[in-house]
Amino acid sequence: MIKHNTYFDGKVQSLGFERNGRRATAGVIDVGEFHFGTDAAERMTVVSGELLVKRAGEGAWVPYPAGTVFEVPAKSGFDVKATAPAAYLCEFL
Amino acid sequence: MIKHNTYFDGKVQSLGFERNGRRATAGVIDVGEFHFGTDAAERMTVVSGELLVKRAGEGAWVPYPAGTVFEVPAKSGFDVKATAPAAYLCEFL
Repeated sequence: MIKHNTYFDGKVQSLGFERNGRRATAGVIDVGEFHFGTDAAERMTVVSGELLVKRAGEGAWVPYPAGTVFEVPAKSGFDVKATAPAAYLCEFL
Repeated sequence: MIKHNTYFDGKVQSLGFERNGRRATAGVIDVGEFHFGTDAAERMTVVSGELLVKRAGEGAWVPYPAGTVFEVPAKSGFDVKATAPAAYLCEFL
């Protein structure tokens, strides 16, 4: 079953699914800056566009263009900024 | 603005967005077999999992695992089959 999730008044939306017992989401982040907390650790693959990311405890925005991956530890969080809509795959580790 | 689309009783869902004047969707296909017609030509990048594809006029199912791309001409269509949920990026050409 596919689960539609929407955050920040629809500025971030995702489609949750599960395969081989692993949860993942395919999502889109619209223009803006958002903060996400993590429960499980996450692997974020940027699929289209670019995301600027600042993980908890980090000072600078790091650009992640399409084709690149970043990971966020469990029980922490990250700020993410998009200057144009960007698509991603999030895998819960 | 991100637009949520749902087809086949939620078995296929996508999130539409636009960047640099180009339309795209990030979507998930659940277990099953589905047919899609195309208006504009489409480039489909499999992001997670695998899709089996039979384009209009083709006889055999062709497997497209994560990381591979297939294109479908305008004004035609394709059958797509998933044996487990799969995520994709669709770019309208």
